[in-house]
Amino acid sequence: MTKREQEIIAAAAKVFNEKGYHAATTRDIAAEVGIQQATLYYYISSKEELLYLVVREPIVRLYDQVEEIVKASLPSRTKIERAIHAHLAAFDESYPHMFVYVQELPNLIHTLQDKIRESPSRYQHLWEEILQQGVATGELRADLDMPATVFMIMGMCNWLHRWYRKGGRLDTATLARQYASAALDGITARPS
Amino acid sequence: MTKREQEIIAAAAKVFNEKGYHAATTRDIAAEVGIQQATLYYYISSKEELLYLVVREPIVRLYDQVEEIVKASLPSRTKIERAIHAHLAAFDESYPHMFVYVQELPNLIHTLQDKIRESPSRYQHLWEEILQQGVATGELRADLDMPATVFMIMGMCNWLHRWYRKGGRLDTATLARQYASAALDGITARPS
Repeated sequence: MTKREQEIIAAAAKVFNEKGYHAATTRDIAAEVGIQQATLYYYISSKEELLYLVVREPIVRLYDQVEEIVKASLPSRTKIERAIHAHLAAFDESYPHMFVYVQELPNLIHTLQDKIRESPSRYQHLWEEILQQGVATGELRADLDMPATVFMIMGMCNWLHRWYRKGGRLDTATLARQYASAALDGITARPS
Repeated sequence: MTKREQEIIAAAAKVFNEKGYHAATTRDIAAEVGIQQATLYYYISSKEELLYLVVREPIVRLYDQVEEIVKASLPSRTKIERAIHAHLAAFDESYPHMFVYVQELPNLIHTLQDKIRESPSRYQHLWEEILQQGVATGELRADLDMPATVFMIMGMCNWLHRWYRKGGRLDTATLARQYASAALDGITARPS
């Protein structure tokens, strides 16, 4: 990828994050890069393609990280802690691309679901594997619905796109520890 | 509110849910009602006002329900179970208004935050009160960050707008029991 292409993708991520995908125009994105709209179309074919380019790299990186965690020989507790950490850290590492990904997923789903490595259902399945491994070894509860529990964890993590600000009171490492602990052990106090 | 006004709000909820707020036009909404766009403007002043009218009633109902729960003399566990149930049930009872509310909240926040009963920060504070009560009585863990834990519960619940379908495999009552149990006790198996 050329430097100019990288600049365009970074500008698109910024504009989509600030304005939302529907309100953003390729004119806005060209202006952010400092080029003409016609020049932008030399590099990309549509706003839809740009949305795809913004999210592709960060989600493949996250999904691959979680696939490594699935394959590792580790207790389920550690796997869940590491996978939640990878998910939350992606909001920092791929800012604002991950924010755009979560907010605009309904506009992206048709493009992504046909691709093996980039399909959100791949990610859902990786999480189901982590939980199934834990149920099989007796580490995790067997009475919870598997897909609903994965959506629960996705919801906890993805909701960061609505409230988390980099450099704020809590960093993603702290949040990941708290969320993993709350998901694994619950928020109820235990007799000591 | 007249029958025609109710029809317009229901049509707006349907169109916003299907197309998204930005892509939807007042022309689409007028067509859904079966009236001219000019006639629609006799009833409402803007698309923004319609978005506000779509979400106002369901969120005030939900927030008021949770306020009653905060005031009740009940164990924290029961309060959390009931409040999660109220939140998830709202997705059914106010379909598709609640789906629109969650998806379009970034477009609504400036309108809502100035109003006392309708402000999302009122809801956030009610949930913080439930958790604080539980920490004060020793029923809930004191080591978790309060606002982050409320966002965690909001994320679990609000994520339904992306995957939950009424009449699907799991109803909101079942989901509420599972989510309350997972949030309170964690997903780790306990020695029996």
